[in-house]
Amino acid sequence: MRRVYLDNSATTPTRPEVVEAMLPFFTEHFGNPSSVHSFGRDVSKYITESREQVAKLIGAKDSSEIIFTSGGTEADNLAIIGIALAQKNKGNHIITTQIEHHGVLHTCEYLKKYHGVEVTYLPVNEYGQICLQDLENAITDKTILITIMFANNEIGTIQPVHEIGNIARTKGVLFHTDAVQAIGSIPVNVQEMKIDMLSLSGHKFNGPKGVGALYVRKGVKLVPHMHGGAQERKRRGSTHNTTGIIGLGKAAELAMADLDEKQKKLTVLRDKLIKGIEERVPEIILNGHPTERLPQNVNVCFKYIEGESLLLNLDLQGIGASSGSACTSGSLDPSHVLLAIGLSHEVAHGSLRLTLGIYNTEEEIDYVLEVLPGVVEKLRQMSPLYNATK
Amino acid sequence: MRRVYLDNSATTPTRPEVVEAMLPFFTEHFGNPSSVHSFGRDVSKYITESREQVAKLIGAKDSSEIIFTSGGTEADNLAIIGIALAQKNKGNHIITTQIEHHGVLHTCEYLKKYHGVEVTYLPVNEYGQICLQDLENAITDKTILITIMFANNEIGTIQPVHEIGNIARTKGVLFHTDAVQAIGSIPVNVQEMKIDMLSLSGHKFNGPKGVGALYVRKGVKLVPHMHGGAQERKRRGSTHNTTGIIGLGKAAELAMADLDEKQKKLTVLRDKLIKGIEERVPEIILNGHPTERLPQNVNVCFKYIEGESLLLNLDLQGIGASSGSACTSGSLDPSHVLLAIGLSHEVAHGSLRLTLGIYNTEEEIDYVLEVLPGVVEKLRQMSPLYNATK
Repeated sequence: MRRVYLDNSATTPTRPEVVEAMLPFFTEHFGNPSSVHSFGRDVSKYITESREQVAKLIGAKDSSEIIFTSGGTEADNLAIIGIALAQKNKGNHIITTQIEHHGVLHTCEYLKKYHGVEVTYLPVNEYGQICLQDLENAITDKTILITIMFANNEIGTIQPVHEIGNIARTKGVLFHTDAVQAIGSIPVNVQEMKIDMLSLSGHKFNGPKGVGALYVRKGVKLVPHMHGGAQERKRRGSTHNTTGIIGLGKAAELAMADLDEKQKKLTVLRDKLIKGIEERVPEIILNGHPTERLPQNVNVCFKYIEGESLLLNLDLQGIGASSGSACTSGSLDPSHVLLAIGLSHEVAHGSLRLTLGIYNTEEEIDYVLEVLPGVVEKLRQMSPLYNATK
Repeated sequence: MRRVYLDNSATTPTRPEVVEAMLPFFTEHFGNPSSVHSFGRDVSKYITESREQVAKLIGAKDSSEIIFTSGGTEADNLAIIGIALAQKNKGNHIITTQIEHHGVLHTCEYLKKYHGVEVTYLPVNEYGQICLQDLENAITDKTILITIMFANNEIGTIQPVHEIGNIARTKGVLFHTDAVQAIGSIPVNVQEMKIDMLSLSGHKFNGPKGVGALYVRKGVKLVPHMHGGAQERKRRGSTHNTTGIIGLGKAAELAMADLDEKQKKLTVLRDKLIKGIEERVPEIILNGHPTERLPQNVNVCFKYIEGESLLLNLDLQGIGASSGSACTSGSLDPSHVLLAIGLSHEVAHGSLRLTLGIYNTEEEIDYVLEVLPGVVEKLRQMSPLYNATK
């Protein structure tokens, strides 16, 4: 059976060049980079190189601003808890949005429960963007952190990051962004965008799973989240995941080289997919911003049907898609993101997210456009909601 | 130049069979195991298998008692902070030892500073073992956790874990053990030993770096340390590190199969090395317990010289060794472990740790015994302390 993978926002295949770069560090250059002997030095120089590759991808001033983590979630935890604890004498107020990834939302819940932190959740408009005036109004003299995602993982909407960075810097509040979905898909420059901290994850741009990084602007102090050894300049204890870090560095280097081309290719495929669905299937809603959206993201609600049934039927045809975030799959609650952009529970349940990657082809999009309308029609025929409208 | 790696307690090379098991999960079975489509299911069954392999290695009752983490440090953080927060209404007292790994000690420091936890640090005798009466005496009605390492990473001493487990269970206090150095080297059975939580790390027994696990006995509730998605039954958010987890499972399977043979082989090499050093070099101290010690561990203080100079000179001869923990290398402070067993700062500075692994050979031990005495003698000749004794 033909198999088409359209869940690249959940994870991506690791590029063969990345695997090749990692391989020698399992068995040959296997040392612990913290060791002082040649077996350690063999590796530590490559860790330095990876740090530089990651720094370059996001426009960091210095590679010492990169802290390697086990992924995007750890980077979010380190940034948000790390600042809340480091600045607890300054204030206890954090501003975020209603549509963040759970890596941010659940971290904020933790801080509310165990550290008396107060959190403002900014609403978003129908496209999923915050209102800058809301942000300005929310800042108080107790605000220590603004954490707003670069682009949404479910609906692909890109936030006005430049403007958020300007507001934060002007008001003297630190700005963290979960850029897990944006890195490797659109240009990001932490200096130009006045970003103080940025989370990224290797496996979202064809690097390995289990590794990510937090950018922390020089001068910003945070309390570590992993308490242990003196690694990462005492900001993250634990033996370096050398193979993962080297894979992340290689993936960053490749992503940087291919960024323009990837962005163009994916935008063409995305728009073909959106247009094709709109032409072939009635009563749908495109979720997210029509233009300010990630090149890889298509998110559509099909009225009268359940997203889960749609996924299972597409899966039977070899198409791998999702209804929203992979981290919450199996949950019966509708997506908090879709509710925040104003959809009813009923409509939100009918969502389908198709996310593109570097290996997708136009033929695959044609295949999806061939299969999807029939599946939707079949499910609608079985739906009491749909029949009631007839 | 001949190269001999004797720093296996810092890290080990990944076994080729482990790398081979991991490889398909980078590029072919690359899905996110949380995804509901076939690309996800392709992977999730292997995650389940790994969980079973790890559970089996430590004698856990059920594989759901295994939480995959990014390594031993994260497992320690999750266990200790997780219990302190989950049981804060019950008590705020933790008992540990003076010779724990920094993954435990720094986590306790964090809890003291930010959560008002009180910590008792049990002393150890000249061999590095705690006194069970001290432990019993330290338990109060506020004690919520005993966290004592299975075997020490620097001097290899094995604690009386059976007895500690009995005391903890009798007193109704949870018992966590950092078993990072013990797993894969000596038999460990969490049920027989009445261990409630156990930390392990893949790269210490020829698995990959960047992955580990925390065993949590069924019924023990803890607050997550990684706040994010619903992975690991909501106990650890973050996309699964699929390749790492599969590598860890394979390493566990191999370690289980080879345990007896490895233990015997390493004990022979260890004893040959200790005896050889004792015969060839005067004025040394064997650190750690003479018999209750890990089969891979040799730790010796050479009076009148600096461990760092010794390491550099051995490195020039191709021998990779360490003075203590890799996590603290570069620090000028003497080892907290060696001070705790009663050594003076001066003597503690002259420590050398040689740790064996499955790939070491008798010929390599002969080479070390050939090289080491000359290096020690040369350094002593340059030492004002040594010359003052003449």
